[in-house]
Amino acid sequence: MTESTLTTATPKVTITSDFWNKYRQLIVKEVLPYQWAVMNDEADINITDEKGGANPDSKNSHAVANLKIAAGQMKGHHFGFPFQDTDVYKWLEAAAYSFSYQANPDLKTVTDNLIDLIADAQEDDGYLSTFFQIDAPERKFKRLQQSHELYTMGHYIEAGVAYHQATGSEKALTIAIKMADCIDANFGPQDGKLHAADGHPEIELALSKLFEATHEQRYLDLAHYFLVNRGVDPDFYDRQLAADGFDNDIIPGMHGVTHSYYQVDQPLLTQKDAKGHAVRVVYLCTGMAHVARLTGDKDLQAACDRLWDSIVHRRMYVTGGIGSTNIGEAFTYDYDLPNETMYAETCASVGLTFFAKQMLQNEAKGEFGDIIEKELFNGALSGISLDGKHFFYVNPLTADPKFQQNPSKAHIMSRRQDWFGCACCPSNIARLVSSIDQYVYTVTDDAILSHQFIANQAEFDQGLVIDQTSNFPWDNHIHYAVKNPNGVQTKLGIRIPGWSRANFTLVVDGAEQTRPVQNGFIYLDITGDLTVELTLDFSIRELQANPAVASDAGQVAIQRGPMVYCAEQADNSADLWNYRVAADADLSYHFDADLLNGVGEITAKAAVRKTSATTDLYADYQPTTWQPTDLTLVPYYAWANRADGQMRVWLNKENA
Amino acid sequence: MTESTLTTATPKVTITSDFWNKYRQLIVKEVLPYQWAVMNDEADINITDEKGGANPDSKNSHAVANLKIAAGQMKGHHFGFPFQDTDVYKWLEAAAYSFSYQANPDLKTVTDNLIDLIADAQEDDGYLSTFFQIDAPERKFKRLQQSHELYTMGHYIEAGVAYHQATGSEKALTIAIKMADCIDANFGPQDGKLHAADGHPEIELALSKLFEATHEQRYLDLAHYFLVNRGVDPDFYDRQLAADGFDNDIIPGMHGVTHSYYQVDQPLLTQKDAKGHAVRVVYLCTGMAHVARLTGDKDLQAACDRLWDSIVHRRMYVTGGIGSTNIGEAFTYDYDLPNETMYAETCASVGLTFFAKQMLQNEAKGEFGDIIEKELFNGALSGISLDGKHFFYVNPLTADPKFQQNPSKAHIMSRRQDWFGCACCPSNIARLVSSIDQYVYTVTDDAILSHQFIANQAEFDQGLVIDQTSNFPWDNHIHYAVKNPNGVQTKLGIRIPGWSRANFTLVVDGAEQTRPVQNGFIYLDITGDLTVELTLDFSIRELQANPAVASDAGQVAIQRGPMVYCAEQADNSADLWNYRVAADADLSYHFDADLLNGVGEITAKAAVRKTSATTDLYADYQPTTWQPTDLTLVPYYAWANRADGQMRVWLNKENA
Ligand SMILES: [Zn+2]
Ligand SMILES: [Zn+2]
Repeated sequence: MTESTLTTATPKVTITSDFWNKYRQLIVKEVLPYQWAVMNDEADINITDEKGGANPDSKNSHAVANLKIAAGQMKGHHFGFPFQDTDVYKWLEAAAYSFSYQANPDLKTVTDNLIDLIADAQEDDGYLSTFFQIDAPERKFKRLQQSHELYTMGHYIEAGVAYHQATGSEKALTIAIKMADCIDANFGPQDGKLHAADGHPEIELALSKLFEATHEQRYLDLAHYFLVNRGVDPDFYDRQLAADGFDNDIIPGMHGVTHSYYQVDQPLLTQKDAKGHAVRVVYLCTGMAHVARLTGDKDLQAACDRLWDSIVHRRMYVTGGIGSTNIGEAFTYDYDLPNETMYAETCASVGLTFFAKQMLQNEAKGEFGDIIEKELFNGALSGISLDGKHFFYVNPLTADPKFQQNPSKAHIMSRRQDWFGCACCPSNIARLVSSIDQYVYTVTDDAILSHQFIANQAEFDQGLVIDQTSNFPWDNHIHYAVKNPNGVQTKLGIRIPGWSRANFTLVVDGAEQTRPVQNGFIYLDITGDLTVELTLDFSIRELQANPAVASDAGQVAIQRGPMVYCAEQADNSADLWNYRVAADADLSYHFDADLLNGVGEITAKAAVRKTSATTDLYADYQPTTWQPTDLTLVPYYAWANRADGQMRVWLNKENA
Repeated sequence: MTESTLTTATPKVTITSDFWNKYRQLIVKEVLPYQWAVMNDEADINITDEKGGANPDSKNSHAVANLKIAAGQMKGHHFGFPFQDTDVYKWLEAAAYSFSYQANPDLKTVTDNLIDLIADAQEDDGYLSTFFQIDAPERKFKRLQQSHELYTMGHYIEAGVAYHQATGSEKALTIAIKMADCIDANFGPQDGKLHAADGHPEIELALSKLFEATHEQRYLDLAHYFLVNRGVDPDFYDRQLAADGFDNDIIPGMHGVTHSYYQVDQPLLTQKDAKGHAVRVVYLCTGMAHVARLTGDKDLQAACDRLWDSIVHRRMYVTGGIGSTNIGEAFTYDYDLPNETMYAETCASVGLTFFAKQMLQNEAKGEFGDIIEKELFNGALSGISLDGKHFFYVNPLTADPKFQQNPSKAHIMSRRQDWFGCACCPSNIARLVSSIDQYVYTVTDDAILSHQFIANQAEFDQGLVIDQTSNFPWDNHIHYAVKNPNGVQTKLGIRIPGWSRANFTLVVDGAEQTRPVQNGFIYLDITGDLTVELTLDFSIRELQANPAVASDAGQVAIQRGPMVYCAEQADNSADLWNYRVAADADLSYHFDADLLNGVGEITAKAAVRKTSATTDLYADYQPTTWQPTDLTLVPYYAWANRADGQMRVWLNKENA
């Protein structure tokens, strides 16, 4: 492979995709204003207990008030989780990303003032975590198992780096630098420092970003230390709990979680399987992959490869959701993917997207792009409603409004909610959508990797411009127009999705060509201008799960292109478990511009059990009479935007 | 119907059934000695946390020690749940029942000494609950939501009545009377008394039994008051919690349970559905049916009828298990019968058996006998191992050793345990098995109701003797020989089980006869001697659940006679979800005397999915190739007595 003469700077990408620009404008017009009003306790909303259950925490988030109190601009106590500040920081990060595609002076005023507020709230030594500053200064860094202090500051560091990048604000970056210095002063291998990491990983990926923005080696070294030291001395956390008062929980009951819940049960470099809290795992892996790249640490990369394999090949739902139990919001065991008691938190899908992006930068492997696509078009995107003001915490593959009457399933909701007591998800999906432009190209030393079919115009350095047009995800024709006025010599790698690997056509400058798929990518040499027509395989597919997956035995999931589909009672009135897809499903597709902001609908030949109105709970089996009917399916991301009712992704399949 | 000239005194029944005498001898030889050793902390065992999870409470029950400390015979603190005493009392009751069929002088010495210990521990005013006497005398009757004080004394009262009946011990009855008087002095509608019932129902059914033993009207009135007053003033419990200290829980976290968890959310007489903790519901209903009979209160009987209908027709598993969620060990909603997160506690099945027995005494309806049979041969009996020293808390319909790695399912165990931190179940199944003789006949004003096919010889008054012989539950021929030397005029009602109602033959004194099935019973006039040959329908049946039961869609359960069957991996090596019963199951039965202490085994024509050793988590559906095979099924009560592995009651059915 000839060395590319391009620098690996990320290109300037302008999203032109209708599908995504609808969401990006929603972020600017609805999501950011709504979330800001909620965090300022100005929105008339109901805050739902994400665990399910009757009593919402309160009507108020208090997230901005906490910062004002810490900054001395308001009197009062802290309210909410010790990491309540992070809702504001993820919101700020989402706003920063939005400036790259939508000038917004009013919002800029709000965010500049917020930067000032955060600077005021920050203590002189750089420390910032409002719960401890307001109500427990003597307990700083004393209960790392659950304090979320580095998790909280890490989320600001990400926001500060993004805000500096978007607006040039030195103040925003300075706050982040002071935080990192404060953490460096208190944590590390040196004597007198705390030889431990935060119970919730985040600081590792944040310090990596800050290192790239500042090139301050201490930040990379500290991130590396947090990773390779994690799990070496798990009792550190128990000694802290004992000293700080075992029952003196900041998060009630949290002293009882197991070491594997927060990945300190064994040294990180020896971990084989994804265990414990799902969001913690994927944040940890995101930092680990980024640090592995920046340091060249092969052991860290090997650990990333093992955990990626564990998640994506044995512990992930077909929608990209991860987390098979609500208890601990955690992974469980290989092929354990129950559809009725699962979790698949929006943040977990967002986090897996981050992990995949870092892995792709480390190695040009199509699978990483496949997973980004799976999350962007399914498991992560389902976390936000079409109106931008309702959110899922849990993204289930089976839902029923009646689940609220069974406490084992009440965390599975069939309506998105205004807000949550623990509101980590709404601002997380917001920052992912507003930063989509960073998920289109990955530039390596050898090639430009086009791994997402999101229509855009990208300007690389030395005048190279690539214009990708398509009506993806509804249409399978992707057009690239490469303008290369200065004759840059490089390669264009185009991901061939796993679902199209067996069948795609490539036309380069008008001539059909065959190219070997190398590790999921086909490569074209770029010398001058170039046009590429890629036609992907959009045949509607019936998927089956590995035979070891008990919950999906005898069932199929329907996918077309990147979109996983589901059945809702809005379209199919009987109980959904009484349908089955016909042996010859005769699947058909048509786009309906008036449905759910415009979606492709799929119809499957099916049958529904003829059920007598028996009141018998149990009776002698009578051979089922199957009445032919059709099943109407809509894309999973768009479910729960119509009348309340049941939903199913995995459908019974005749004779399967 | 001519009035029977028999008094309704319960007959003297001698069990002759091989099946049940094996268990009754097991009670005497293994279960009672083992449980006594455990409760005296003399057994080398592991005590399992019934919630699943790693850390067993401890190695010790401390149940007898608590009584010794309360009696001043030992120093120390109370250990265990506030109702730890009840393990001893249910054990004592089981022992009392065993004297009726097995003279046991050594055991009698132990139980007489235990009666003395209990008398010593009892306070002068009759109060007895060791936790409060030892560690919290100032909190007596102050936290009724969770104190279990009347639940604890109620269990002694049942034991005391049984022990008095079995041995004539006045001392045992006096303890019970003093307890009842203490409760009567503190509770009731009168001014100055507590206008409330115990959070855990039990005292109502206990006072009913004590009334029948003593004919003291105060006890019946108090039981009636506890019932009709329940749920009229739910805030009583919250006022007590506030006064006693909201977080000052005796059972950690219990101040947070909802009113419906313990059936005080609305007046009992207005309850429509079975809601909340399952054992509490069936204990409450048992007392309610008994008091309804003793008082003739039609409203109470109507409430019983509604709750019976709710449980048996919409919220019960095919094995008789009840309780669809582990969270709160509770009922959930109609037709919600998940097989992987269910509860079906042994005590709940035992309690439903008690409820059915009282209802049958109120009304000669076959269904009540059907449910007693369903529990005795399935959901209750599965709670004890064949060796008598291992027990289930949860009796699931799907099990997998791997469930221990998913906290949502860890309460579902595939091995019975030595003992539990909350050890309510082991002694409860013990007292049910040792009192089986009380579950064979119900004598009403009009007839002798033979509602269980358990071989026995029963002596009624006036010299009437009925000898029932059979090899039930393996053989379908039931023989009755009625000896009636004094020409008693009465009727013999014989229950025709629901599973045989369409097909049975009746031969009376050698001549085949037809008799109408009236509400589940056929009736024969008894004037002189009589022989009856009843042949029931033992054809092997495939059952289907109501179409509203999502968890059993497309599946069948196999039943022969009273026995529900299941598949275990001990007999079927592949993952059980990959089998399906053939359209023509061609079911066959054979008895194997060497298997599981002698059981009838069933073979079904089936097929198993041909699975490739794919590592793909998801792949394009390939039409399943079904390899013909057989499924071998064993009776559900006997599962988990061989090699550890998966178990399933509901089996995929071809084309269902
Ligand atoms: Zn979240
Ligand atoms: Zn129990």
